[in-house]
Amino acid sequence: MHSIPRYAPKLFLPADLYGVTGWPLAQSLSPLLHNTGFQTLDIPAVYLRWEVPPERLPAFVDSVRLLGIRGCSVTIPHKMALLPLLDRISEQAELAGAANTIYWDGQTLCGDNTDVSGFLTPLADAPLENTDALLLGAGGAAHAVAAGLRLRRCRKVFVTTPSNRSHLPLAERFGFTPVPWEQRHDVPAGLIINTTPLGMRGKHEGESPYDFSLSATAHVADTTNAADGKAYADTAGIAYDIVYNPLETRFLREARRAGRRCVTGLDMFFGQGDAQFRLWTGRSLPPEARQNLEKALYGAR
Amino acid sequence: MHSIPRYAPKLFLPADLYGVTGWPLAQSLSPLLHNTGFQTLDIPAVYLRWEVPPERLPAFVDSVRLLGIRGCSVTIPHKMALLPLLDRISEQAELAGAANTIYWDGQTLCGDNTDVSGFLTPLADAPLENTDALLLGAGGAAHAVAAGLRLRRCRKVFVTTPSNRSHLPLAERFGFTPVPWEQRHDVPAGLIINTTPLGMRGKHEGESPYDFSLSATAHVADTTNAADGKAYADTAGIAYDIVYNPLETRFLREARRAGRRCVTGLDMFFGQGDAQFRLWTGRSLPPEARQNLEKALYGAR
Repeated sequence: MHSIPRYAPKLFLPADLYGVTGWPLAQSLSPLLHNTGFQTLDIPAVYLRWEVPPERLPAFVDSVRLLGIRGCSVTIPHKMALLPLLDRISEQAELAGAANTIYWDGQTLCGDNTDVSGFLTPLADAPLENTDALLLGAGGAAHAVAAGLRLRRCRKVFVTTPSNRSHLPLAERFGFTPVPWEQRHDVPAGLIINTTPLGMRGKHEGESPYDFSLSATAHVADTTNAADGKAYADTAGIAYDIVYNPLETRFLREARRAGRRCVTGLDMFFGQGDAQFRLWTGRSLPPEARQNLEKALYGAR
Repeated sequence: MHSIPRYAPKLFLPADLYGVTGWPLAQSLSPLLHNTGFQTLDIPAVYLRWEVPPERLPAFVDSVRLLGIRGCSVTIPHKMALLPLLDRISEQAELAGAANTIYWDGQTLCGDNTDVSGFLTPLADAPLENTDALLLGAGGAAHAVAAGLRLRRCRKVFVTTPSNRSHLPLAERFGFTPVPWEQRHDVPAGLIINTTPLGMRGKHEGESPYDFSLSATAHVADTTNAADGKAYADTAGIAYDIVYNPLETRFLREARRAGRRCVTGLDMFFGQGDAQFRLWTGRSLPPEARQNLEKALYGAR
């Protein structure tokens, strides 16, 4: 009863389906990021959100295969459970023990962890192989950061958590040096990274995981590659906060005043999304995507 | 790590997901129909196509539940196998033994058969309870037609097929009178309905399932309700072709010349789509949807 249409307005081209899955998902900014990308670049695709309870994750991955969903962002609590459900896992996802991205390579359903590349992008010019780092926190995000530090052969990494507990398995997994929370200011670190929720908008907004006035280290990193305006290690080192709301946390504000170069959580969040978009489309997210993200997070400025 | 966006441009509202499933699906016009409806009426929704092999239909319905797909058109070969997979089935789907539409009523996943209502819409003013009908063909579409004739209490229905076989179970199921193919011109019928592929664009285009010059019946229906310009039974009766490409089949052309009122397959196809759209959105498809459908099928005229 059907016939091939002779008239197919561009508006009604078949759209590719993308989305994000997590549990819950109410506040994800990924739909804004990727839909802006698709629309700005005129790519016939739509990015939706799918709340999937943990016990239904295998059924969800089956749906991805069955419906030909072209790509998916994966967030808490599914990043680890996803690994055995895919056909192939990238090196950085293996290393992090988690994947945040589903994409297709031909008929092969693949997993990658663009939190790792998103974390590394702002550090592209930092001489990590000659830098010691202090990692604050040991949760899921810390695992992606740890994988990034390992991949870039960061010289020595110290890890500490407020609970003084969960940093031990992470230290063992990645060969890092565990540090008691009370001694965190005593270790030398050109790169200090916050992955704890301290400083995040809400009940922890006024807090910081680090007191730069107590820091034992001001001059620990090399001073190579200091002329390109990007974030990199200089004599004062780098402070990196993966919290992106507010844009400048107390941690970063005090780091800036202590003379450190700062990398915001927005850089990492945009970086992980941009890496997803490139896996899916072969193109970078356009400037409009970052602009819409900043408007959504911080309003018109 | 997330915050509620303060800025949410209309473009990036969450979209509702709809689609069509069948096997194969290459030539479905439903995406054109429904996407035109969504876009013209400014409804944030997208309608995709999902080719699903028969053995995967249960997994597909599971995906509908898991991903919250808001509605789905269902076509060959899934219309019958769908019934036991849903929570509730409409009377007309029960009667036809098939469903072509999935929709939600609250948390209940429902099935309906809008082929039945699509078939009946052009006959709204025909006095079927005083009309005898001849049904040509006994496939899936004939079952929807049969259900419609039963629901509207059509007086007497004769059924016949070129194979002289498959009309027997249909006749038994619906209480119709089976007629040998060779005797189809001898039965009195104010309403003659073609559900065979004879006349369809392609190898059967020049053929017709009925020779009106041999028809025993020219004056069999009532003449009530003859003043409103819609398709209805008058002294010459109605010819109804569910084939929609070409718009005027040989069957309809000869019926028109024999003085019959004609109903095209396009009316039925648009009617079933419109009924789906109303189940999903509570609104009718806009005129633009029919215009785009006609352009796709028949080109600019």
